[in-house]
Amino acid sequence: VIPSDLLRGLRDHKPAALARAISLVENGATGFEDLLAAIHGSLGRSRRIGVTGPPGGGKSTLVERLTAAYREAGLTVGVVAVDPSSPFTGGALLGDRIRMERNSLDPGVFIRSMASRGSLGGMATTTGEVADIMDAFGFDRILIETVGVGQSELDVATAADTTLVVLVPESGDGIQVMKAGLMEIADVLVVNKADRPGADRLRQELEVAIGLRSGQVYRHVRAHHGVAVKRDGGTEGPRDRTPPLVFGAPVPRSPGPPDWEPPVLATIATDSTGVGELVGALDRHFAHLEQTDQLAGRRKKRLEIRTREVVDRAVRRWIWSSEGQAAEVESALKDVTAGVKSPYEAAAGIVAKLLGGVGV
Amino acid sequence: VIPSDLLRGLRDHKPAALARAISLVENGATGFEDLLAAIHGSLGRSRRIGVTGPPGGGKSTLVERLTAAYREAGLTVGVVAVDPSSPFTGGALLGDRIRMERNSLDPGVFIRSMASRGSLGGMATTTGEVADIMDAFGFDRILIETVGVGQSELDVATAADTTLVVLVPESGDGIQVMKAGLMEIADVLVVNKADRPGADRLRQELEVAIGLRSGQVYRHVRAHHGVAVKRDGGTEGPRDRTPPLVFGAPVPRSPGPPDWEPPVLATIATDSTGVGELVGALDRHFAHLEQTDQLAGRRKKRLEIRTREVVDRAVRRWIWSSEGQAAEVESALKDVTAGVKSPYEAAAGIVAKLLGGVGV
Repeated sequence: VIPSDLLRGLRDHKPAALARAISLVENGATGFEDLLAAIHGSLGRSRRIGVTGPPGGGKSTLVERLTAAYREAGLTVGVVAVDPSSPFTGGALLGDRIRMERNSLDPGVFIRSMASRGSLGGMATTTGEVADIMDAFGFDRILIETVGVGQSELDVATAADTTLVVLVPESGDGIQVMKAGLMEIADVLVVNKADRPGADRLRQELEVAIGLRSGQVYRHVRAHHGVAVKRDGGTEGPRDRTPPLVFGAPVPRSPGPPDWEPPVLATIATDSTGVGELVGALDRHFAHLEQTDQLAGRRKKRLEIRTREVVDRAVRRWIWSSEGQAAEVESALKDVTAGVKSPYEAAAGIVAKLLGGVGV
Repeated sequence: VIPSDLLRGLRDHKPAALARAISLVENGATGFEDLLAAIHGSLGRSRRIGVTGPPGGGKSTLVERLTAAYREAGLTVGVVAVDPSSPFTGGALLGDRIRMERNSLDPGVFIRSMASRGSLGGMATTTGEVADIMDAFGFDRILIETVGVGQSELDVATAADTTLVVLVPESGDGIQVMKAGLMEIADVLVVNKADRPGADRLRQELEVAIGLRSGQVYRHVRAHHGVAVKRDGGTEGPRDRTPPLVFGAPVPRSPGPPDWEPPVLATIATDSTGVGELVGALDRHFAHLEQTDQLAGRRKKRLEIRTREVVDRAVRRWIWSSEGQAAEVESALKDVTAGVKSPYEAAAGIVAKLLGGVGV
């Protein structure tokens, strides 16, 4: 049911086909899963880089500068912006928006901002699917910008090959950052707005935290404070404290081997300071993934998560849209709002009815 | 299957029973839905106040000061903190944590921080269920602190009777705030850290934005700039642009009648400036909800959403834990990671198998 000209258009790098395919996916329009199944075989060419961190850290500016750097190197770039405060999604000052548009006039760049809610199968799934379309279209790099607060940080880590965490001196001390879970998913860390007070201190704290995580206290503490401290080889960092597994929810990727130690870089995105080094660090991380076979592992994990999400979505769609169930559900909901039943009794009734035929 | 002494303990206001009941719910332990069904009839006594906004706005300090103010008025307070950067959840400087603990030694206060991920049915559902336990226990006020970025802002609005949005001068201009969706859900707005530069400007922008939303441009513009502007009575504000309905996902509550205009207050939480006025504004909003019958409407909507969530959760549990399916699912996932099938083909197979018996 997918128009063959859409597939052909994607293969022939027609921007109109790209935009149409992305809209199809974002709206969950008829045939969108067929399209995603059809392009599946051509995925894997793009490197996916997740860019996350607290709001106000300058993620969008950094994404824009990374895009410019990749373009200078002759690479094409797709951007998926999910951050509701991102200039890409409209939450920007005029100057930022103009800068973004300059980028978007370049045919080697495609920027898509996503509404931050209302998608059928959850934001994370749709974001990954839009990245798939960009991958099939043939972008060399796909930058996925999300705000890193709460749940979303795990989503970005599972959607990307490399996760870049962007912090600013105002983000608070290293302990807070670690608690927020960002440290656990960072492959590369950036202290942006590095000309502000506190930037050096934050960098040092982050490096100490990374050292603790990989059990390499000794080297860091000595490097930063000139003191030799006995290394506690047995310490397990926060990366090892994986949250409990949840049915159908994204599974956090397993801790990598200790051989990759996330570098902490300093940037001033507004004047491109440090962006070249950042590009280098991202390349090094990708090369590391390839050399250690972790790339295949991360991508397999991604496929597994995607499959689970698609199942969940299909079942949810079946529950809430099936003709036969509608009256049943409606009457149960009426019982709840009328105070006749608790949500739990009503839900049990709906579920029993729904799954009765399959022997629960 | 719920121990009767747990129900009795809750009814008799035993803190140990409260803590045990909350843990049961948070862990999704055996019988937790029976417990929630059993207490359902005793809900509705507490006023639920959602406190949301960008990280770094001082939400936790404000929650602490609100708690203190309610305690002085002889009211008991339950706090559910979901914000991963909140002092309640550990992401705090020592001083903050000590202040919180002072509160938590008071038997009239119960603070529960929630892990920000890993719950069976999604964070929002579990948060609401923990609030239910606190409601059944008999707290006069329940404060639900969440970070207001992206999806979570809708969740807090559906979980609470009154939604308080906390901003700081650094939050950016009014347009950004509006875009972030926070304006759409605010019943009461606070500009915290009101002694900082830009606080007055932010307040004015917020008031103008609220005026635009309720079509009352005239009064605000005149009030703030001394200029008479013709009122555009027909303008529909962002509140009316409800996002598309999603199967099984929280439904945003419908726009209230235009008679409640969210007040914009100034506070300095660190020294309690403005907290008394804030308590007054929250009381006024609740009285307004009662007088206009909107309280019942909001609570009915909440029950409906809860029912849908419980159904989704039960079906998800069934899919991913059912003994019979496990081998089937495992083999489909293997096909995906081996590159034999796309996630979409594998998912379709799983779903067809799952729902085959019920005639999809």
